[in-house]
Amino acid sequence: MEGTNAPVAMEETAAPTLSKKEKAKLAKLAEKKLKKEMAAAQLNQEEDDPLAGNYGDVVMENLQSKEKSCRVWTNVGDLGQDHSGQTVLVRGRVHTVRGKGSLGFLVVREAGHTVQCVAAVKENVVSKGMIKYVGKLNKESIVDVEGVVVVPPKPVEGTSQPVELHVSKIYCISKAAVQLPINLEDAARSELDLQKGEQEGIQYVRVGQDTRLNNRVIDLRTPANQAIFRIQCQVSALFRQALLDENFVELHTPKLIAGASEGGSSVFKLDYKGQPACLAQSPQLHKQMAICADFGRVFEIGPVFRAEDSFTHRHLCEFTGLDFEMEIKEHYFEVLDVLEKVFLTIFDGLNTKCAKQLEAINEQYPFEPLKYLPQTLRLTFAEGVAILKEAGIEVDPMADFNTETEKTLGKLVKERYKTDFYVLHRYPSGIRPFYTMPCWDDKSYSNSFDVFIRGEEIISGAQRIHDPELLTKRATECGIDVKSLTTYIDSFRYGAPPHGGAGVGLERVVMLFCALNNIRKTSLFPRDPQRLAP
Amino acid sequence: MEGTNAPVAMEETAAPTLSKKEKAKLAKLAEKKLKKEMAAAQLNQEEDDPLAGNYGDVVMENLQSKEKSCRVWTNVGDLGQDHSGQTVLVRGRVHTVRGKGSLGFLVVREAGHTVQCVAAVKENVVSKGMIKYVGKLNKESIVDVEGVVVVPPKPVEGTSQPVELHVSKIYCISKAAVQLPINLEDAARSELDLQKGEQEGIQYVRVGQDTRLNNRVIDLRTPANQAIFRIQCQVSALFRQALLDENFVELHTPKLIAGASEGGSSVFKLDYKGQPACLAQSPQLHKQMAICADFGRVFEIGPVFRAEDSFTHRHLCEFTGLDFEMEIKEHYFEVLDVLEKVFLTIFDGLNTKCAKQLEAINEQYPFEPLKYLPQTLRLTFAEGVAILKEAGIEVDPMADFNTETEKTLGKLVKERYKTDFYVLHRYPSGIRPFYTMPCWDDKSYSNSFDVFIRGEEIISGAQRIHDPELLTKRATECGIDVKSLTTYIDSFRYGAPPHGGAGVGLERVVMLFCALNNIRKTSLFPRDPQRLAP
Repeated sequence: MEGTNAPVAMEETAAPTLSKKEKAKLAKLAEKKLKKEMAAAQLNQEEDDPLAGNYGDVVMENLQSKEKSCRVWTNVGDLGQDHSGQTVLVRGRVHTVRGKGSLGFLVVREAGHTVQCVAAVKENVVSKGMIKYVGKLNKESIVDVEGVVVVPPKPVEGTSQPVELHVSKIYCISKAAVQLPINLEDAARSELDLQKGEQEGIQYVRVGQDTRLNNRVIDLRTPANQAIFRIQCQVSALFRQALLDENFVELHTPKLIAGASEGGSSVFKLDYKGQPACLAQSPQLHKQMAICADFGRVFEIGPVFRAEDSFTHRHLCEFTGLDFEMEIKEHYFEVLDVLEKVFLTIFDGLNTKCAKQLEAINEQYPFEPLKYLPQTLRLTFAEGVAILKEAGIEVDPMADFNTETEKTLGKLVKERYKTDFYVLHRYPSGIRPFYTMPCWDDKSYSNSFDVFIRGEEIISGAQRIHDPELLTKRATECGIDVKSLTTYIDSFRYGAPPHGGAGVGLERVVMLFCALNNIRKTSLFPRDPQRLAP
Repeated sequence: MEGTNAPVAMEETAAPTLSKKEKAKLAKLAEKKLKKEMAAAQLNQEEDDPLAGNYGDVVMENLQSKEKSCRVWTNVGDLGQDHSGQTVLVRGRVHTVRGKGSLGFLVVREAGHTVQCVAAVKENVVSKGMIKYVGKLNKESIVDVEGVVVVPPKPVEGTSQPVELHVSKIYCISKAAVQLPINLEDAARSELDLQKGEQEGIQYVRVGQDTRLNNRVIDLRTPANQAIFRIQCQVSALFRQALLDENFVELHTPKLIAGASEGGSSVFKLDYKGQPACLAQSPQLHKQMAICADFGRVFEIGPVFRAEDSFTHRHLCEFTGLDFEMEIKEHYFEVLDVLEKVFLTIFDGLNTKCAKQLEAINEQYPFEPLKYLPQTLRLTFAEGVAILKEAGIEVDPMADFNTETEKTLGKLVKERYKTDFYVLHRYPSGIRPFYTMPCWDDKSYSNSFDVFIRGEEIISGAQRIHDPELLTKRATECGIDVKSLTTYIDSFRYGAPPHGGAGVGLERVVMLFCALNNIRKTSLFPRDPQRLAP
């Protein structure tokens, strides 16, 4: 595109006192500048506009790593009053746009942050052609905007940044289709506004969950979604750092498992080069093998696959497991000590490091901050049953709670102990997996625990049986084919330390910390019994 | 086990001047102590040994979270001269053992670290019964040893720690089977010793790769393997932290993908609730979608599945991908800038943080430290071809190098530039995926790169095509069914920033950093076309 014939603004026209040579040099410089401007923009918008070099669609050639200039882009989210008077360059999306006569308004959005950009006709800089061009930009197109940062006399409404950009140049990097499947404003509208709208008879478009997920690439651009996945990232980072600080080793265990031994219909089966195989439902067996292999304390962050037909707000067919396993010297409370420390680190970390993100979520989906104690509450399962009984709710003391009972218990515990986060331990053996260590004093109970946030279970863990004989006995008692467990049980035959661990779903942690109503909101590209795309 | 009738050492026998009440109190205390000792050990070893409470097999009941004492265990790896004279408690494995008469020698190993423990008959503490007990311990059994740290007059040979433990108590926590499928000493023997043995006619047992992998839980206990996976953990941690520091967001993309569109025979196919599905061969498509969803800079650490029939030293059917993707403002060199920074951080970090681990690997598998430059060398593919040509090696300048040519080029580059780590970029378009951005000046080349360590490719990356029209055109040119790419291509229709990224195999990074000869050494539980277990 170099060498097209549209003129550009020649601010540096040669002064009359210059020599021929100097003039030629300056002309050359000007031509070079012209070429550069041309290179940066396609200039067939307004052929008769002498300022056409200041706007236009960038041609593909210029987006193919043609040159590396020294230009610096500023993040929209970083724009503040301390930039006042500075010329900055930002790259972002056309969030909203309107142009009329000699004035164009454009809200540019980057990573959920928005800034108002004003294009006003100005001699030698902004032409009517630019205003027209701005007015025609499709929403969600990506633009480079150069402009001066101005602190407006009164704050701009509806943008996240407190300043305006007075546009001098604008180029479109990537055009969005005219028709968008989701309108970002609709997708980002707060629950409160939607409720208010209903009361006041305003017909807002409510974007349904499926429409969002079908168009996830657009849906994810809302400030709340931008925040959710930055929080998710922070949860992983805090979990990992807290465990590394406790001398844990991060592992990667295989997801492809021989046979389909892990559990009937709830595994995804596949053919592995002629061998029957399945996808790991949990890294637990391999985590335990790692303990038997002298790694002492291990953790993993990775995908977990469940082929269950659970159509609930809290189940996915693929989720991210945060798992750890550790040697126990004496008591499974050692596992709980680590777990509680890690989760307090996560909660504290989110509250301090992600204040902005939590605010962005709160704006769309209002929620009460999570209440938790500096010393996590531990109740036995039996104590949980008793609390329910006191409130007039009779449950089978040896059966698992259903979701509703869990919620009720959560409420009762919160009333009594002022916490949304607590541990229930010493579960009946009958409702835990066969490899769970029974209690020393009563084998109808086990050294196991669940952890709850806002009345929903998020973590499950236990001391495991490290003795091959006891393991075989328990498997048999539970009606499991011991032959299918040979590899697993054999891992314990060559010396196995007492150990225990726990597993957490990353998506559930984020969902429950932010009191979101559906786990699909906290999975980037969720997989459920009906959804396998995008 | 409380209340068995074996006596224990009564060091605190009541003095004769005490009153009846005081005597009773002390007797009660002594009994309590006795019970505690009993509780810690099964005491039917030597019924007539008054010191039998100081050793024995711990019964299961006492390993079922019976009580939480205030005892503190010291890590074997931490034992040093500053512990001299202190009584410590360690838990580890019986690495080697021999008992004769009144002296028992035991090397205890924990996480690859070893310490010599000496049990010598001593009045009121160590009986002949204990020596006998020690002598009968099976290798790899797990024991608790209490003893005094002593700095020996001359250093102990064959252990990692410079001190000895003079045993006062020893209890077996978990018994290993008498017959071990692998002898740890054999598995840990250095390549140099094996070679020396061959020359000198010593018949050392060489533990083969398959035997190791079939008994991975034991194989992983060698000091070199303990080190390898701690280094692997550190590579992940450094990769992640370096990217978080550069404002990247960690993602978790789905591994379950609709259809089998990603590439014929090299994908694992499965049935997803009646829908055809496959396992992700790379997170790339979803990483790119995340870029289109405004996350700006993203990365993922997760499993990658390849059903290829590659029986080489460097291919696995499941490995851990370190992937990142980022917006490009102008040039794919921005991706390389990040990549090089991250890898220099990893290399520097390993050299400083993992010196001990590198030494442990070096002891078994000697290797030259990786040479790398503070400013990474970048050569174009054409320059690579020219270097080969100068050395008399003619290659097709538009075809990919084979493994041998890569190795040769690696050697030539090392001779000329003194580095084991370099970048080759601007690859011919014909040998890169359809979604690779062609060069602006010559579409037969592309904005792509590979990165090499010790002459082996470890990283592949490129600027991607962000324009749906160009993407469709390229797919068609490459003979790909565009219909199968609808979701992918559609992601770019609603505004897509120029972007690029790269993918690295974690196992390869560790293998090549440490110059190991087989990727199975750096995968915890490797999966190859024939191996799906353990």
